[in-house]
Amino acid sequence: MNNFLSVKDVLDVEELVQLATRLKTNPHEFEQLGRRKMIGLIFFNPSLRTRMSMLRAASLIGLDTMVLNISDDGWKIETRDGVVMDGDTAEHIDDAIPVMSSYCDLLAFRLFPTLTDRVLDYEEKLLLKIEALSKVPVINMESATVHPLQSLADLVTIREYSKLQKPKIVLSWAPHPRKLPQAVANSFMEWTLKAGMDITVVQPKGFELHQQYTKGAEIMYDQKKAFEGADFIYVKNWSSYSDYGKTSQDKEWMITLEKLKETNNAKLMHCLPVRRNVVISDQALDSPHSIVTDQASNRVCSAQAVLTKLLQENGSL
Amino acid sequence: MNNFLSVKDVLDVEELVQLATRLKTNPHEFEQLGRRKMIGLIFFNPSLRTRMSMLRAASLIGLDTMVLNISDDGWKIETRDGVVMDGDTAEHIDDAIPVMSSYCDLLAFRLFPTLTDRVLDYEEKLLLKIEALSKVPVINMESATVHPLQSLADLVTIREYSKLQKPKIVLSWAPHPRKLPQAVANSFMEWTLKAGMDITVVQPKGFELHQQYTKGAEIMYDQKKAFEGADFIYVKNWSSYSDYGKTSQDKEWMITLEKLKETNNAKLMHCLPVRRNVVISDQALDSPHSIVTDQASNRVCSAQAVLTKLLQENGSL
Amino acid sequence: MNNFLSVKDVLDVEELVQLATRLKTNPHEFEQLGRRKMIGLIFFNPSLRTRMSMLRAASLIGLDTMVLNISDDGWKIETRDGVVMDGDTAEHIDDAIPVMSSYCDLLAFRLFPTLTDRVLDYEEKLLLKIEALSKVPVINMESATVHPLQSLADLVTIREYSKLQKPKIVLSWAPHPRKLPQAVANSFMEWTLKAGMDITVVQPKGFELHQQYTKGAEIMYDQKKAFEGADFIYVKNWSSYSDYGKTSQDKEWMITLEKLKETNNAKLMHCLPVRRNVVISDQALDSPHSIVTDQASNRVCSAQAVLTKLLQENGSL
Repeated sequence: MNNFLSVKDVLDVEELVQLATRLKTNPHEFEQLGRRKMIGLIFFNPSLRTRMSMLRAASLIGLDTMVLNISDDGWKIETRDGVVMDGDTAEHIDDAIPVMSSYCDLLAFRLFPTLTDRVLDYEEKLLLKIEALSKVPVINMESATVHPLQSLADLVTIREYSKLQKPKIVLSWAPHPRKLPQAVANSFMEWTLKAGMDITVVQPKGFELHQQYTKGAEIMYDQKKAFEGADFIYVKNWSSYSDYGKTSQDKEWMITLEKLKETNNAKLMHCLPVRRNVVISDQALDSPHSIVTDQASNRVCSAQAVLTKLLQENGSL
Repeated sequence: MNNFLSVKDVLDVEELVQLATRLKTNPHEFEQLGRRKMIGLIFFNPSLRTRMSMLRAASLIGLDTMVLNISDDGWKIETRDGVVMDGDTAEHIDDAIPVMSSYCDLLAFRLFPTLTDRVLDYEEKLLLKIEALSKVPVINMESATVHPLQSLADLVTIREYSKLQKPKIVLSWAPHPRKLPQAVANSFMEWTLKAGMDITVVQPKGFELHQQYTKGAEIMYDQKKAFEGADFIYVKNWSSYSDYGKTSQDKEWMITLEKLKETNNAKLMHCLPVRRNVVISDQALDSPHSIVTDQASNRVCSAQAVLTKLLQENGSL
Repeated sequence: MNNFLSVKDVLDVEELVQLATRLKTNPHEFEQLGRRKMIGLIFFNPSLRTRMSMLRAASLIGLDTMVLNISDDGWKIETRDGVVMDGDTAEHIDDAIPVMSSYCDLLAFRLFPTLTDRVLDYEEKLLLKIEALSKVPVINMESATVHPLQSLADLVTIREYSKLQKPKIVLSWAPHPRKLPQAVANSFMEWTLKAGMDITVVQPKGFELHQQYTKGAEIMYDQKKAFEGADFIYVKNWSSYSDYGKTSQDKEWMITLEKLKETNNAKLMHCLPVRRNVVISDQALDSPHSIVTDQASNRVCSAQAVLTKLLQENGSL
């Protein structure tokens, strides 16, 4: 593994899940691995779980961390090529990334999509540019289209809660007042499918994910029907891919305790942050169905597994 | 000690003061105590001394630290129960705290009062909710009504500067252009009274502290009279409790060098930040009476004592 | 070396350059030097390279770091003497610095000039006040008039790229849409001249640097002529000293590949951030002439040399 940009960088998903699970039990196993090394966490966008779990994961393997909230701490960054920079951007990404990668042994980035320019977002132009400019391994802390650190934690959580080879997993769209990225949903599909899981995605018409992420999954439009027999309900809002960035607050799709009762006693998952009583009702979130806290806590061992793998396999760092 | 929310969590105030004093002399005595552990410092409000002294104190005992300025780094947090979160808050405290406490071994919070809703503030609803939601010990870095880390440093400073069993201490209100919390004053009363000290509080009519904090203290309204024979003058502005949040800029109450001359050569204390020539005059602050820098520097050994005690007495962390 | 405020604190510039160069090769040579010690990085203004390189440099010598973005994390700071603080500043620098210096073993500050009050800026009133108030060594992370950490890295880079005893170095002014400090340019002149280098500065009429920094250098107004035979072109915008703070966007002065071709195959230097196609063209920056990334990467060993020297020579810390 040279970088961790998406599931494509992972040869064996199950092996990585197992490493994470093992590190959850033995968090100090590789506590010297990061010695004398530095990771830079670069945030173009806000973050709570990713920030905190990366900091803890790095600490557990003895890796030093520096955090940069790029627009607050540093300068507004230009990402377009060839422009005359006489506006409000003070530094070009072409100059910033090589410098950052000279200061750190690993670099991790959070980069949200525009949600207005679909081609730009889905080409992952910015992330790929960063990777090309960096002399050190790059970690995706959520980019325009995927959030692989989240998906790895999701798989760890599913393995933890089900002994079934193929539990029935349903990814359900839910309403939201703001337009949100498709990244968590895309990435969840990609990872579960690569892991050979049985996965259904259900959403209103017009909110289908890009088919490159759902090929091999069952696609449904009837939430009630989709939930029948489900072992896991993974809830997430995303804005439209086809009518790019359009959102919907259709209350009929909110996840309630009643809906969970119509499943196979399903576990309720969500990546957080979650808007209560909009995306999921209080009763559902506060019921024994919910494993959202465990899911979030698995962000540490998942991040630790990724850092461990990158450090082990890039010995010349 | 399971948490450090207020003086009520401290069985023996003098013992804690002595631990802090000892750590001031031997700062590296427990430098391995925090090994492999992480404290999260969560700021809902700005902080300079608390932030810096906690970072140093943690470092001295080998405890790793992560800092979160919650609205800048993460998401705007909802604290009310049962609301439909379709506004500007993106995450509920019910979800955020369990996650944070899964990432850290200790959590510390700074939470200012509303100064508009007295019942909400004085019930410490938010702090108590956080404590209930956290799986790890919680430290109060100033809450709606108290600031126990400050008060402990205040006591350490008083013990350092006076060999008297019962020095005469006067807490004096002072003017301020903004409405400020009562937390530092409340807490100072609570701690000095629990330590059995002789304490007088003086303020204009209408600025009396809640009597739960002043029971056992002398309450005066004549600053000149109160200062007679004082060994310590502790200065602080606070807004009104009775006419909740009302402030006053009454210049007559500013602390001047002339006023200090009418004491028993009193030491001048203030928790900082202090508005010069509004709360205290330049001449008073720059005179030998002032021990505000020493008081602030004692924030380190005090925080270190609290962290040490929590780590020692919560072995299963 | 008791502080690192400017080149004046450096007895032997070449020795410091050599220490930095040695640390670049052996970054872990003094990895225990900073043990049990803390540096505070205090930012009154934004920073990317200085922030990141200081964090890495401190980490390499085992020095713990705390970072404070002073207005975001803490309070707005008053720097004027004798004022009645009833406005928007909550803390006076007279009170903040002694406290900070009680929490840390070293303090580093970034302080930009007003660019409106030349006397205030060029007296370095704020930096000198901080130095006077601090009980611990103070490091200048760019002040009103100089940026010595940058200049040291510049010298390290020049020594790295040229075996000539006296390479021909040209500092060229370049256009910019915003009014920028003279600090990098002033400091570059001061350091290269003290190191006995052959240095020319070229700028439009009205943009001459203060002569205290350029005494001993050749001063030219014809960029084309100045570039003839140059081994290094150091590019930087600065606003006017004589018409204090005035800027200019005169496109004729932008650095292009064509202009570099008219040199002695000069290396192109800039401290970054650089506005592409305003200060320097894309083609020039992306050509083999450019060593701006190496120059920026030398910020780590340079900062490390300064920290090493301060820790070694202030044993009683």
